[in-house]
Amino acid sequence: MTTSITVPQAAPRGAAARARRIGVDTGQEAVAYFRADSAVVRSEGFDCATRVWVRCTGRETLATVHVVSGLLNPNEVGLSESAWRRLDPTPGARLEFAHAEPLESVRHVRSKAFGARLDAGALRSIVHDIAEGLYSDIHLASFVTACAGRRLDRNEVTDLTVAMLEEGNRLRWDREVVADKHCVGGLPGNRTSLIVVPIAAAAGLLVPKTSSRAITSPAGTADTMEMLAPVDLDVGAMRRVVEREGACIVWGGYGRLSPADDVLIRVERPLELDSQGQLVASVLSKKAAAGATRVLIDVPVGPTAKVRSPAEAERLCAELRAVGRAVELEVLPVVTDGMQPVGKGIGPALEARDVLAVLEGSAGAPADLRERSLQLAGRLLELGGAAAAPTGRATAGAILDDGRAWRKFQAICDAQGGLREPPRPRHIRAVPARCSGRVSAIDNRRLARLARLAGAPHDPGAGLELHVRIGDTVVPGQPLLTLHAAAQGELDYAVAYAGSARDIIALERNR
Amino acid sequence: MTTSITVPQAAPRGAAARARRIGVDTGQEAVAYFRADSAVVRSEGFDCATRVWVRCTGRETLATVHVVSGLLNPNEVGLSESAWRRLDPTPGARLEFAHAEPLESVRHVRSKAFGARLDAGALRSIVHDIAEGLYSDIHLASFVTACAGRRLDRNEVTDLTVAMLEEGNRLRWDREVVADKHCVGGLPGNRTSLIVVPIAAAAGLLVPKTSSRAITSPAGTADTMEMLAPVDLDVGAMRRVVEREGACIVWGGYGRLSPADDVLIRVERPLELDSQGQLVASVLSKKAAAGATRVLIDVPVGPTAKVRSPAEAERLCAELRAVGRAVELEVLPVVTDGMQPVGKGIGPALEARDVLAVLEGSAGAPADLRERSLQLAGRLLELGGAAAAPTGRATAGAILDDGRAWRKFQAICDAQGGLREPPRPRHIRAVPARCSGRVSAIDNRRLARLARLAGAPHDPGAGLELHVRIGDTVVPGQPLLTLHAAAQGELDYAVAYAGSARDIIALERNR
Repeated sequence: MTTSITVPQAAPRGAAARARRIGVDTGQEAVAYFRADSAVVRSEGFDCATRVWVRCTGRETLATVHVVSGLLNPNEVGLSESAWRRLDPTPGARLEFAHAEPLESVRHVRSKAFGARLDAGALRSIVHDIAEGLYSDIHLASFVTACAGRRLDRNEVTDLTVAMLEEGNRLRWDREVVADKHCVGGLPGNRTSLIVVPIAAAAGLLVPKTSSRAITSPAGTADTMEMLAPVDLDVGAMRRVVEREGACIVWGGYGRLSPADDVLIRVERPLELDSQGQLVASVLSKKAAAGATRVLIDVPVGPTAKVRSPAEAERLCAELRAVGRAVELEVLPVVTDGMQPVGKGIGPALEARDVLAVLEGSAGAPADLRERSLQLAGRLLELGGAAAAPTGRATAGAILDDGRAWRKFQAICDAQGGLREPPRPRHIRAVPARCSGRVSAIDNRRLARLARLAGAPHDPGAGLELHVRIGDTVVPGQPLLTLHAAAQGELDYAVAYAGSARDIIALERNR
Repeated sequence: MTTSITVPQAAPRGAAARARRIGVDTGQEAVAYFRADSAVVRSEGFDCATRVWVRCTGRETLATVHVVSGLLNPNEVGLSESAWRRLDPTPGARLEFAHAEPLESVRHVRSKAFGARLDAGALRSIVHDIAEGLYSDIHLASFVTACAGRRLDRNEVTDLTVAMLEEGNRLRWDREVVADKHCVGGLPGNRTSLIVVPIAAAAGLLVPKTSSRAITSPAGTADTMEMLAPVDLDVGAMRRVVEREGACIVWGGYGRLSPADDVLIRVERPLELDSQGQLVASVLSKKAAAGATRVLIDVPVGPTAKVRSPAEAERLCAELRAVGRAVELEVLPVVTDGMQPVGKGIGPALEARDVLAVLEGSAGAPADLRERSLQLAGRLLELGGAAAAPTGRATAGAILDDGRAWRKFQAICDAQGGLREPPRPRHIRAVPARCSGRVSAIDNRRLARLARLAGAPHDPGAGLELHVRIGDTVVPGQPLLTLHAAAQGELDYAVAYAGSARDIIALERNR
């Protein structure tokens, strides 16, 4: 028989100091700044990068220690903005500190890094600690990397999806059919949601659409929608909009719907890394949390899109369908052409203008954005039972052409806080063709990077306008694209990148 | 024929601000603090977590932006200690800033995360950027995780080793045989190097031993040696010691020997992650950089050691030998018993006392530490040609017993700056057995964690003394171990962990 040692349990006495808000924005990571000569540092042995528990009248969080030689009084502890938000102390409040034992869930991350399978309990504990803000950036980066590629099997993706879904709020609607629409991304300018959702709502479907901000792209649907109406709606406000207009288009990060996803995104962005398993868990947990029951998912395929080959698309579609079933979502993946960007604009405001042109039926509206939107809207109407196959496309076209979609979009914007005008950029520069030829390829990834260097999405007016499509013929000096930036530095930087990165727009010379 | 667009190249104009040292220690990551309302932030569009190039009269580094609302004047930029060290500006110096395009080498890290093989060029670019301090903690964590488990094949490990070796300094000695000795770790208290090195040097071998500080353990060889003599020697000082005494035992991070390794260690520690491929590259690049030609590597195997099974040990040994050949190192891996800690003390000062007891031939010296050291010294003497097999063990025993090893150790310490006394702990608490029984197992990992919670290695006197070994019989109340800590908070924390973590020392009850 085996037994084990135990010793009298002593609760660690917390060291204490006074809270000071020092106004440093460190991103998601909570940082506590200690004077090197403070009593806390000397008695507790805190060191740079130590992880500590910080407690304040009923609230607590984990923080990373940065040691400072000045800035503070010795009896003060400085809190980063993220730490201040989580603890919400009064200035000068007494904070208690204790050494943080490594989180149990971090052991599971390590197991995953070493190639082990994670069970539902392990994933639940990881997701819980992430949603609570207990992971440092280092731990988040390790988790995201450990799950990258195809390192999560289908059961793990399902368990991760369920864990992410259960960690936050979950909306319920008193309808059997709740429709939604999502794109896995990778195609600049592919803002069909802002056209599909009002069409579907005008046809009578309930569409509580949540959307994301850009991760590695120049604009997310939420970034683009924000150019036209407020998107930071809490769950109550979102519910009122949907009950009034049958649909909304809001940012999904505000309502604590799959909150771990919002944290993970912040390291996926600098790593430029979002893997298939996490993509599936991210999308489906958000959709299920918003109460959707039938979801159309646009999967653009092309050599420079996120999904590069039909085989990869087929794997992703199978995964989406299977994991969807496990969380009671009927998922309809639709594989689409991902060879080149959609519409003309790339960047939040520029894409918003394309959307308005299509909704308003302007003469110059991008035909490709219009046609993709109608195809997808047709499939969504059929999926939701608002049109019988194969009449969905025709029904959608009628709703767009007679102005019902545009009126519905305006009503949704009003309900979300009012339709508004996208900002105009301050600095513009055209990038001309050096020689004549036929456009043979457009690199989505580099074009996206170019738009980001110009300032998108953090400068919402920034990005670029694309003037050519594959197959077009150009002459020397003809503008291929126009860069838009809010600051001269960014415009210069984007121009330099356009000059150094070859083949963003490949021209085949005439012979 | 395919061509591509180019545009007139515009060098990005750098925005500028005045350097201020604000004394914040952020660890390895360079941070630049900007006022939210500063001209730089407004004109360049810098945002929290943006990566920026910072330039100052011939030096430059990448830094992560933290935005502050006060603390600085609008025309100032605050630099973290790591950024200040790299740029070394005069206070108030003019710094220039520019948006950092994502590092090319980070694309290779992403490829690895997605499961691709990395070629020598990719690994070289990653290692170069890491050694230059250009990776944020997020990127380092991603690289370490992407390479964890067995995700690096033998060619990749070889290429990584060569890249790490070539990035720093490399010592040459005018002898054909340059011996060295290393342990892959995972066994608390296994401080044989401090005994093996003086024996080998006394036998006439040249042993320029570099050692590491603790990653996830309560003490590294460098931490323990530092209790007895200075270890922060630069390459010139190290050379003088070796030329005078035939050996040294210094910290390997001071001489820019495989400098990328020193950066990686700082994220491996909070992640508690060091994988086989990186272990091999880390060890062999350090040894080759120090000029070794024949290296004995101790591989302890046990269920709670770093290497858990004979099969895993065999894989690691094969990898060490093969990669060693590629960098012209003759590697002799020696598999040893890793069932329980070695010696009595765990923690820098406590382990140093065990070493002194063995070298001095004290009556109470730990017999297991002595015997392991003699076995390994014997093999090293044979590997280096200082003894013919199988007489190495006997020769080593004679050198230890007649005091030559102790005199050589003292001479090495003198040459490194002087032998000194390890510190004594301030707070001590014994952990008694709750019941009678026979010690059936000791958990190396949890015991190591316990010693770390007590403050090792950052408080060098902290750690624990183990009073029992597997097979010993104990009665209730008999001390199993004694905790040593520099601060009451840490002692309390360690006591609480000892109480909550079961089976650190498993007792089989007498029947």
